[in-house]
Amino acid sequence: MILAKFGGSSVANSHQFKKVKNIVNSDANKKYVVVSAPGKDEQHAFKITELLIKLYHARPNSINFKNLHAEIMQRFYNIIDELNLDKSLKLLVTNTFSNVKKLSYAKLVSRGEYLNAQIMANYLGWHFVDTNDFLIIENGQINYVASQLRLANIMHNDDKIVFPGFYGVNFNGEIQLLPRGGGDTSGAAISNLLGVDKYENWTDIDGIQVVDPHIIKNSVKIDSLSYDELQELSYMGLSVFQEDSINPLKNKNIPLVIRNTNHPHRLGTTISNQNSSSDITGVIGDQEYSLISIKKYGLAKETNNMIAILNVLNQFNLEIKCMVSEFDSINLFVKNIEKIGQLEAFLVKNNISAKVQSNIALVAVISQKVLANNKLQRRIIDILEKHHINSFMFNQSSNDIKFLFGIYAKDYQRAIKIIYQSLFEKNLVTQAL
Amino acid sequence: MILAKFGGSSVANSHQFKKVKNIVNSDANKKYVVVSAPGKDEQHAFKITELLIKLYHARPNSINFKNLHAEIMQRFYNIIDELNLDKSLKLLVTNTFSNVKKLSYAKLVSRGEYLNAQIMANYLGWHFVDTNDFLIIENGQINYVASQLRLANIMHNDDKIVFPGFYGVNFNGEIQLLPRGGGDTSGAAISNLLGVDKYENWTDIDGIQVVDPHIIKNSVKIDSLSYDELQELSYMGLSVFQEDSINPLKNKNIPLVIRNTNHPHRLGTTISNQNSSSDITGVIGDQEYSLISIKKYGLAKETNNMIAILNVLNQFNLEIKCMVSEFDSINLFVKNIEKIGQLEAFLVKNNISAKVQSNIALVAVISQKVLANNKLQRRIIDILEKHHINSFMFNQSSNDIKFLFGIYAKDYQRAIKIIYQSLFEKNLVTQAL
Repeated sequence: MILAKFGGSSVANSHQFKKVKNIVNSDANKKYVVVSAPGKDEQHAFKITELLIKLYHARPNSINFKNLHAEIMQRFYNIIDELNLDKSLKLLVTNTFSNVKKLSYAKLVSRGEYLNAQIMANYLGWHFVDTNDFLIIENGQINYVASQLRLANIMHNDDKIVFPGFYGVNFNGEIQLLPRGGGDTSGAAISNLLGVDKYENWTDIDGIQVVDPHIIKNSVKIDSLSYDELQELSYMGLSVFQEDSINPLKNKNIPLVIRNTNHPHRLGTTISNQNSSSDITGVIGDQEYSLISIKKYGLAKETNNMIAILNVLNQFNLEIKCMVSEFDSINLFVKNIEKIGQLEAFLVKNNISAKVQSNIALVAVISQKVLANNKLQRRIIDILEKHHINSFMFNQSSNDIKFLFGIYAKDYQRAIKIIYQSLFEKNLVTQAL
Repeated sequence: MILAKFGGSSVANSHQFKKVKNIVNSDANKKYVVVSAPGKDEQHAFKITELLIKLYHARPNSINFKNLHAEIMQRFYNIIDELNLDKSLKLLVTNTFSNVKKLSYAKLVSRGEYLNAQIMANYLGWHFVDTNDFLIIENGQINYVASQLRLANIMHNDDKIVFPGFYGVNFNGEIQLLPRGGGDTSGAAISNLLGVDKYENWTDIDGIQVVDPHIIKNSVKIDSLSYDELQELSYMGLSVFQEDSINPLKNKNIPLVIRNTNHPHRLGTTISNQNSSSDITGVIGDQEYSLISIKKYGLAKETNNMIAILNVLNQFNLEIKCMVSEFDSINLFVKNIEKIGQLEAFLVKNNISAKVQSNIALVAVISQKVLANNKLQRRIIDILEKHHINSFMFNQSSNDIKFLFGIYAKDYQRAIKIIYQSLFEKNLVTQAL
């Protein structure tokens, strides 16, 4: 059994719906579908979900409100009309948005997925099952045990089902949204609950490339990689698949395949418990870091010193990507924060001697080869050195498949390019490793 | 003005006292001397301080007690007799140990320094000033402000003075010992209080060598290095000079010179605010580490996660030499601890997924060149690789003059040797850097 999840661009209009039908019907094992709300396409600059958020915040009965309300309904009407579907679906759309002001934020914003799943179920001739009826979300976390129990009461073995992504329900029966990338999370969670053999994540890309396509357009595509490798990539900024959605699949050893709805014959990238098909899985990074360097004499002598400093930093809600502490120093790499001046003043006030530097990039080369020996690391240092890119921090931890280094943001894109070129384009990979 | 501190081996017997006199008299600028208690020599397997500790714990009037008591006094008698000093000094020794059972631990154990300073002052014809009268120690820390005030009331400008090392006094007038390496600390503290131009630390070694002489007997000696470099070396395990004693000198920019009492014409090693005279200041490490690897999903998302884990570890009084945390892992290098099994069980009980590995070595190559570019780092990785030594962690932080890596203890001595040989013996230093 396969669960196929279609993201916003894959279900943006009737034309995309037809592609989905072809994909789903081409394989009898595809028994479950999860859909997002209609996304952007050439005609539409906004996702339905974005419009719904705007609608929620619009002043009722303002022109803005009326325009948004009409625009949202029209997109669903168009899909229904263009696919010649049952007129009752249009009534469902109208009724859903008949009393917008009474809907909670979560309920209104989730109606894009709800209606799209209803329309898709009708179009495919499958059952619609509302995640509202089984996917228990408390405090933003899915309760798998409770969800499993509810789902068992709904499911019949032979059903082919379309589910809406992005939302579930709490124990009080109130609709709850999943955080960032909720569609991926729904797909992964439902795959876990159903125990499917494969989870296909249909998108508008051919799979995962070694380098961010914004930096190198056609870098090598990775055919397969492991859950852990994907987690490292996601951690370093890859947004192809939502980071929190990996574990529900990994825990049940369900392979995840990233595929392209617009090119369904391309094989995509498979994520499983098998290591990457490529020596190098990714050259990935982000240039929007700040480096907080803290000095405190005798820091390492007592764990309490570290705890005290972290308690101070804690008040700034930092996401600490990487922290290295020694003897008398702590270096923290955090995503650029708006109020750097305020943080610095705060540290001074708390008698913490610190320096904050912005425009820092962190780059990781992800490869199982990192574990085997130090040849790859040596080669990367070599490449940076030859191109006069100064790396002021680098780090490789035990059992780690990631070689991480810090450079200045100005060198970021160039560093990614030269490393990729050296490792891939010159056909030196085997020689290097 | 110079303060010269003589360690235990430099004042172990009358023969050594004569060397000290020659050294002190050879330079009119040497106005202050700090002495340790008599240390080990060819005739004596124990330091006086060790004997005093044994005496404190011996059952009063036992044979053991009487033997220790006699042995301690005899060593001082011998020095006094062999130097033909005033007989009143022997009375001072006798009186000092006349009622041992009434002395506090700190008072008894510090009598080695006290008597040795009295004898040295008499031998040199200098004044004796007791640190008891001015060096204020509260909770193991020197109170510089209070000490300075007291010292100002005692000192006369032209005095040449001998001070005992190792102890001071609290505000209640009770003798207090300085922690580990107390003699170095006294010397550095008194140098700071007096504002001397130079602090000479007379020992039984010629200075600081690039590599631990237990691994390579005659590695290159470093003529000069900076306070920060010495601090890094001390942090990594160099025991030539007590780590906590560096700051009192650094703060007043007082140069420290490590010299050899047995070879007073050798120039030793000078530590000041100037960087090392050598490209590589040290290849140094320790093989008695354990690596605690903690995994926690989503660790980096909230600083609280880290604080919670550190609070648990805090109960084990670990000295965390190096800690690297990322995404979902923390790696801590700590000195080998006795109760590893207990720590592991404790972590499990606290729902912390952790693995503890023993027999880990940490090695640092300390060099200002680390800051300039990555050539040195690359070369070291190269050397390890060529000799099939697997480094499972390496780290270089910003503004850091230390390149740190983790290897297995079995490879420790070999790694130090091959790095030293590659960087120094083959005359490739300039080529490498």
